[in-house]
Amino acid sequence: MSEDKKMEETGISRRQVLIGTGALAASTALMQFGGLLRSAQATGGTTEKWPWPYEKLDPAKTAQLAYDEWYRVFCGAAVINSVVSQLREKIGEPYKSFPSDAFVFLEGGIAGWGTVCGSNAGANVVSNLIIGPRIAGKDCEHGHSIGSGMMEWYSETALPVFEPKEPKQPTKIVQTTSKSPLCHISVGKWMKASGFALGSPERKDRCARVAASVAYKLVEDLNAWKDGKYESTTDWAPGKDLGITAQMNCEECHTKDVPSPPMAKK
Amino acid sequence: MSEDKKMEETGISRRQVLIGTGALAASTALMQFGGLLRSAQATGGTTEKWPWPYEKLDPAKTAQLAYDEWYRVFCGAAVINSVVSQLREKIGEPYKSFPSDAFVFLEGGIAGWGTVCGSNAGANVVSNLIIGPRIAGKDCEHGHSIGSGMMEWYSETALPVFEPKEPKQPTKIVQTTSKSPLCHISVGKWMKASGFALGSPERKDRCARVAASVAYKLVEDLNAWKDGKYESTTDWAPGKDLGITAQMNCEECHTKDVPSPPMAKK
Repeated sequence: MSEDKKMEETGISRRQVLIGTGALAASTALMQFGGLLRSAQATGGTTEKWPWPYEKLDPAKTAQLAYDEWYRVFCGAAVINSVVSQLREKIGEPYKSFPSDAFVFLEGGIAGWGTVCGSNAGANVVSNLIIGPRIAGKDCEHGHSIGSGMMEWYSETALPVFEPKEPKQPTKIVQTTSKSPLCHISVGKWMKASGFALGSPERKDRCARVAASVAYKLVEDLNAWKDGKYESTTDWAPGKDLGITAQMNCEECHTKDVPSPPMAKK
Repeated sequence: MSEDKKMEETGISRRQVLIGTGALAASTALMQFGGLLRSAQATGGTTEKWPWPYEKLDPAKTAQLAYDEWYRVFCGAAVINSVVSQLREKIGEPYKSFPSDAFVFLEGGIAGWGTVCGSNAGANVVSNLIIGPRIAGKDCEHGHSIGSGMMEWYSETALPVFEPKEPKQPTKIVQTTSKSPLCHISVGKWMKASGFALGSPERKDRCARVAASVAYKLVEDLNAWKDGKYESTTDWAPGKDLGITAQMNCEECHTKDVPSPPMAKK
């Protein structure tokens, strides 16, 4: 059975989702999922006023910082620190009080469990930290959409795209497309294509370059947002379209039959 | 082919992993994965000194806070705020400067993508925020192991275990065991067992109760750590044992053949 045929049985074509012309903002998609919208009543955090001050950064410099930081704090904290460390110097608070290094745990898809790639999670931390959560109001919607857009870009792009000027590993690093935001799938496909083990220097350098690639795009998006030119690139609305939170590669796990979840209104 | 038989082909028995007597600390497991250990050289964060001050909290009160907060900020930020909001009052800084509400994006497995359950991610944020990342030294190793242990507990427990005294939904909420830390699988299995849709009030209340259940256990673990009595409960070391970052339910996605990753040393 073809991929398109399988997807049709779930009531949605992947192509339709990816190329859909009437792009819904991700925040709209999430409201469909959660069905809730209320004003934020923060519980006393002094830094919970968004957006935070932001100055445009250099994407290439940020990517190099993320590459270097990977070897100290791994993927998630590397992406976070590549942005936050620069804003600590340029702006100061509230960035100085944000404990980026606490996010080392994002490594290996959270403590090695292979769930969301730490680079994706780190990018979501940064965009929501700076622009704010979607519940904080209309000025803050792109924290969410930059993060969600990163997950889609990561899934659809042959990674890594960043090449360090002075690579810590001279071996050519092949590019692979994960079709998923998950560490296990992204790393697994790369290991299969390259033949290198998880513990190899080449795999580590691949992941450092992926973190750098994500940091590069993240700063491009943040700079566009600062200029008032960012537009959401994703219309991924699985809650509304599929009836369940999901990534796009249903068939990779559900090899035979993609189940149909119970749909509202029950 | 039986589950055990399949697992044997990957060189590891799931039962062996789950019941293994010689429990390795999760930090040891991760060093096997990353193969790196170096001292932290933080990039200027004023709050990057660990452990942070902590006072023991009441698990039941915290769970109720998480349940209520779910209806404002959803799973991940609810777990974070259930702890952080209390420590803001009891201790003040550095908790007052931590922007918990930025983590609304953890909802639906990060912006609805169904990856790691936000309650798991939120618990990892809290344990690593308070105790510190594993790179911060020996006193900080349990930030990592409490987080990783939560992923295992979540996967193996019939959830939700928390029952609110005044439930927002009166319908009986069935318990399901996800065998996975992922939102998509956890929510999907519950929807299948209950027949309720993603957008239903019952599904929302189920997820609010799951967040509360995770917050309850998180505070139990943090209190034990404060008393010097916390011991890591997980020996999950997929990098070392399986050669790839992974969760434990290989067969659920790899229905026929679980691939063997290239192993070090290449």
